[in-house]
Amino acid sequence: MAAKKYFTPLQEVYRFVTEAMMAAGTPELYAQNMAEVLVSADRRGHTSHGLNRLGIYVAEVLNGTTDPCTTPTIIQDKGAVALVDGNNGLGPVVGNICMDLAMEKAKQMGVGWIAARGSNHYGMAGWYSMRAADKGFVGITCSNSSPLAVPHRGKKAVLGTNPISVAAPGNNDSFVLDMATTAVSLGKIDIQRAENAKIPAGWAQDFEGKETTNSDTAMIAGCLIPLGRTEETSGYKGTGLALMVEILCGILSGANYGPFIKKLKSTTGPANLGQSFIALDPSAFAPHFEDRLSHLLEVIRTSQPVDPTKPILVAGDPERIHMSQVTCRGGLLYHHGLIRSLLKLAMDLQINPLQCKPLSSC
Amino acid sequence: MAAKKYFTPLQEVYRFVTEAMMAAGTPELYAQNMAEVLVSADRRGHTSHGLNRLGIYVAEVLNGTTDPCTTPTIIQDKGAVALVDGNNGLGPVVGNICMDLAMEKAKQMGVGWIAARGSNHYGMAGWYSMRAADKGFVGITCSNSSPLAVPHRGKKAVLGTNPISVAAPGNNDSFVLDMATTAVSLGKIDIQRAENAKIPAGWAQDFEGKETTNSDTAMIAGCLIPLGRTEETSGYKGTGLALMVEILCGILSGANYGPFIKKLKSTTGPANLGQSFIALDPSAFAPHFEDRLSHLLEVIRTSQPVDPTKPILVAGDPERIHMSQVTCRGGLLYHHGLIRSLLKLAMDLQINPLQCKPLSSC
Repeated sequence: MAAKKYFTPLQEVYRFVTEAMMAAGTPELYAQNMAEVLVSADRRGHTSHGLNRLGIYVAEVLNGTTDPCTTPTIIQDKGAVALVDGNNGLGPVVGNICMDLAMEKAKQMGVGWIAARGSNHYGMAGWYSMRAADKGFVGITCSNSSPLAVPHRGKKAVLGTNPISVAAPGNNDSFVLDMATTAVSLGKIDIQRAENAKIPAGWAQDFEGKETTNSDTAMIAGCLIPLGRTEETSGYKGTGLALMVEILCGILSGANYGPFIKKLKSTTGPANLGQSFIALDPSAFAPHFEDRLSHLLEVIRTSQPVDPTKPILVAGDPERIHMSQVTCRGGLLYHHGLIRSLLKLAMDLQINPLQCKPLSSC
Repeated sequence: MAAKKYFTPLQEVYRFVTEAMMAAGTPELYAQNMAEVLVSADRRGHTSHGLNRLGIYVAEVLNGTTDPCTTPTIIQDKGAVALVDGNNGLGPVVGNICMDLAMEKAKQMGVGWIAARGSNHYGMAGWYSMRAADKGFVGITCSNSSPLAVPHRGKKAVLGTNPISVAAPGNNDSFVLDMATTAVSLGKIDIQRAENAKIPAGWAQDFEGKETTNSDTAMIAGCLIPLGRTEETSGYKGTGLALMVEILCGILSGANYGPFIKKLKSTTGPANLGQSFIALDPSAFAPHFEDRLSHLLEVIRTSQPVDPTKPILVAGDPERIHMSQVTCRGGLLYHHGLIRSLLKLAMDLQINPLQCKPLSSC
């Protein structure tokens, strides 16, 4: 049985996140930075990176794991690159500043590459790549993250889901890849568990290193399987991509890395995550980039599908479909469990609860 | 029954490739460029990108599809980036010049990003990333390629295997990711076919869009499956990565792209491939990059495996193992079928045949 859902307008989610972060001690501008990223994630259908994460961010501010007031510092700057220390600030604050700096450099030098350390979970990676693509750049970002993935052949979670996002502008179109380097993120498993559903084989292992289809076991073990799955179907490539991200994040910036990053929800100290932010100016290369990109995307979309009822989509299309649905509906839908936990959060923080209404069916 | 194999020293392969390319009309230096890449691929165990490809490269020179004498031109240069026209030259000639230019820029500006068009198949992508890593940079390269991959949900091959390689230097260690964005490259299927063996499910589709385990069918259809395989295990991510490569190659540089690239072995005209070459100077970021990288790699390698007989490897380890075997053995092993085709090539080009001796068993 599908769990009961609740409807709320986008603006109300934005209001609630901003007030919650402010009540926890975050300056208004930074609270708004956080609200923009979370609302965007839910609007795009990345519900594992939206309002459901607010409780974690608030807790990290309240228990001092994250400093909500600090501003990042540029500690090294050379030509087209810079190293930024996030000073343990909020991920979206660090991320926005870094991608803006990358774009400044790209305007001058064709490309800008900023590595950040001392950062925190920055939400949906696509937020930052799209920030660049919206201004005509190819935007690329990746982040290391709390250990949740086994390396190929491995039993223990010693790598993060280490997402990578690439966004590029077309003509009234865009490419937005935003992917964990595991088969799926933990959030997708959590959604299955919330609905008492099994997970497909290939998503997670149990503590013994065997694939599991039990969503409870998967959540408790926290051992996600790299993209590619088995040896025969090149699971080592998923681990290779996760390590590539780790090298461009933790190793490049001097942040924490691999199993030395604190576990999710742990309050043992700062996460000290590493991230990379790259902006590339297509106009510094061949003219008419947008035309070619739009053409390529259309050619792929209109290529013959195996099953005519399942058309070919390019990265960003599922999110566009979800955003249309949100626009038609006039707002977002949330599960009963999340609404209940947000009600408690509002009481704890003494702010107005999220205004929402139950839907009889979804 | 395993096919009969032949042994030959590295130096002899280098001699043979150089002479074959020169006999086809390639200047000595450029012929040597080609020989270095092919010998390196076979030495590393990437046998799908070694001597077995020589016949194709020679044919492309002889039939005028590739211009073996031309030199690439820088057609746009701005700060840390440049656009290079390969002028339809040999892939390794274009690739070496572009990665060297990227390193020059990285020395000055922390990063260099070169996009090339008018290029040809450049062999093993890892050659170029390692060229940068050997000099202390993080090297990244990717290339588009002849259509051989279906997009996720698709029936037709409209994308290339679009490889990406990332190499980074450690202390007496390195990370070398070199991967097609399909589950496997066509070469791996060809190797199975040469041994009359089936292929694992998840590598290729037949003309109807069904997965096939028949290596003949797979070679004839030429429809490779993206990394991730099914919808449930995120096959769309493999397609997303292939499109990312296409955007950073064909779209960025103004080269051919997607299904508009000529088919493998077609002589209808220049391939006009697009490629990107990126060098990143880790010393422009946080000090002690190599120490951290070596530590990370050791932590992953020594993490607990599911099966103690299958230790965890990082990208570059399988190649290191293969190179040790080559060193012990004193040279390379080739299948009877390849040796036979090279004998014919030597006769056609009127050069000394590859000197090799049969092994009684392998």
